[in-house]
Amino acid sequence: MKIADIGGEFALIKRLTRKACADPVVVKGVGDDCAVLKYTDISYLLVTVDMMVENDHFTLEWHSPYQIGYKLMEANVSDIIAMGGTPHWAFLSIALTPATEVEFMDEFYRGLYASAESHGVHLIGGDTTHGAIMVVNLALLGAVEHDALRLRSMAVPGDLICVTGTLGRSEAGLRLLKQGLRESSVNSHLQPRCRRVWEGRIIAHFCHAMIDVSDGLGSEVRHICEESGTGACIDWEKIPLLPETVAAAAKVSADAHDFALYGGEDFELVFTIAPENIDALRDQFSDFTVVGEILPAEEGIYLMRDGQRQDVKKGFDHFA
Amino acid sequence: MKIADIGGEFALIKRLTRKACADPVVVKGVGDDCAVLKYTDISYLLVTVDMMVENDHFTLEWHSPYQIGYKLMEANVSDIIAMGGTPHWAFLSIALTPATEVEFMDEFYRGLYASAESHGVHLIGGDTTHGAIMVVNLALLGAVEHDALRLRSMAVPGDLICVTGTLGRSEAGLRLLKQGLRESSVNSHLQPRCRRVWEGRIIAHFCHAMIDVSDGLGSEVRHICEESGTGACIDWEKIPLLPETVAAAAKVSADAHDFALYGGEDFELVFTIAPENIDALRDQFSDFTVVGEILPAEEGIYLMRDGQRQDVKKGFDHFA
Repeated sequence: MKIADIGGEFALIKRLTRKACADPVVVKGVGDDCAVLKYTDISYLLVTVDMMVENDHFTLEWHSPYQIGYKLMEANVSDIIAMGGTPHWAFLSIALTPATEVEFMDEFYRGLYASAESHGVHLIGGDTTHGAIMVVNLALLGAVEHDALRLRSMAVPGDLICVTGTLGRSEAGLRLLKQGLRESSVNSHLQPRCRRVWEGRIIAHFCHAMIDVSDGLGSEVRHICEESGTGACIDWEKIPLLPETVAAAAKVSADAHDFALYGGEDFELVFTIAPENIDALRDQFSDFTVVGEILPAEEGIYLMRDGQRQDVKKGFDHFA
Repeated sequence: MKIADIGGEFALIKRLTRKACADPVVVKGVGDDCAVLKYTDISYLLVTVDMMVENDHFTLEWHSPYQIGYKLMEANVSDIIAMGGTPHWAFLSIALTPATEVEFMDEFYRGLYASAESHGVHLIGGDTTHGAIMVVNLALLGAVEHDALRLRSMAVPGDLICVTGTLGRSEAGLRLLKQGLRESSVNSHLQPRCRRVWEGRIIAHFCHAMIDVSDGLGSEVRHICEESGTGACIDWEKIPLLPETVAAAAKVSADAHDFALYGGEDFELVFTIAPENIDALRDQFSDFTVVGEILPAEEGIYLMRDGQRQDVKKGFDHFA
């Protein structure tokens, strides 16, 4: 039976993994950006892993080795930040091909360290092996104070849905590259930058649920709703887009809103917040946009566009 | 420049990674079976990662999906046990190919869980993606009491070098498979079994240095000597071999001692122990053989065979 036949990537994960865990140390296992473990008197331990495969998450034709290393670290740090946490210790597994040169590895590590050092992360272990294609995996550990932990399941009907920065940039860059248009805006795809640790910590102080944008706004809001047992309305017109993202979408005959909703790897933060806390957050951090509202479950999950209710399509799925 | 030109896998790791780590939480970073982090008042946190790539660490022609899952977990648990620790929480990253079927994944997870449950490990997170070949990576966390931690660097001249069980079985199985000889003994390659947690804990109580056998006895003794600043003598005649390993070696015109010294993935334990502690250990655990002695650094690292001193060749190297 094909994986698509049972409903794709997320259905497969549901089929194979066990949400319940009998270990009392495990606060949260499968089903959030990180696993959460009991740690010190004041903090939890956070653990996340991310694998990137050549010709799938990166290509040696477009990406420099520096960018591959940088992107791998940012993707993982983003998961820790989305829990309200601070990243600390990283472990790299890497499969190199017979063609991999030493200079390539020097540059890959330079990118990896550049991102790591900007977030205070120490690379303290790993596994080096080889294969027919290049594959990299990072395991990243971090910590979060007990009262700063933010889960996907913490959204409450009435919360406003907010997103940091702008969306659709990575998908726009990918589409341009696929058409051979190597403009400066493709850097959002080649070397995405996640939010800073301090930003996540401030947002966590005011928000309810939080998640990072790795598969598009639509997919992330869906995850929040599933885990929180809520519905949601996303206001199509309010989705924050850069003019260059809109221009790139026009060039490839697409809609930039779709890049934002269904494209991957923007590594922004989506969070839900009680309306009365918005102003206090904005006093300390203002680079975010209100894009919707958390609703009771029975109202469903939908887009509101020109006064019309539309379905939120499924996000990127490796196996759909 | 090719990786082989700078000296292969271990030279590359030395070039790229930084042994020193300014973070006071990091007790031991790069350079042992696991990284070691400060954790509770009585224990350290252990972290290890292992990547297995299709057609390199396994092949779909020989390995069942159950065996791939089982082997991945055993390889990682072995690293925790070799520190004197107890494994707890695992995180799976997996790249599937377009051809991967749901039934394959069911079996892979059944093997992974079978090993995990036998060691008390909980699988609590991961990343599922796809690629042109199948790649699996496990990150495994465990813990060890402060006084039970055993590092590669803890060997002392005068220690006896011991190894659990028998060696060369995995390499013998691999060689038979390569010649199309699918005998029962190939299971040591297809589904290797690491030592049990209680065995590692008892050995740790009595030994100085410990390491698991993933690249052959020669390579592991070399690692201990490098980290401990010692030399070593391995007694060729005393290397423990099963009759079936000797028979397999004969069939493929090789020497079973070489399988033990330079073959991979036996997942036995090599440890060094003061001679006066051997009997006390044997009272509680006896499945080990004395194969040599730790010497002062100036005596070098060598094999003693028929009264003749021989060099210990380098072990398996992905890039040599």
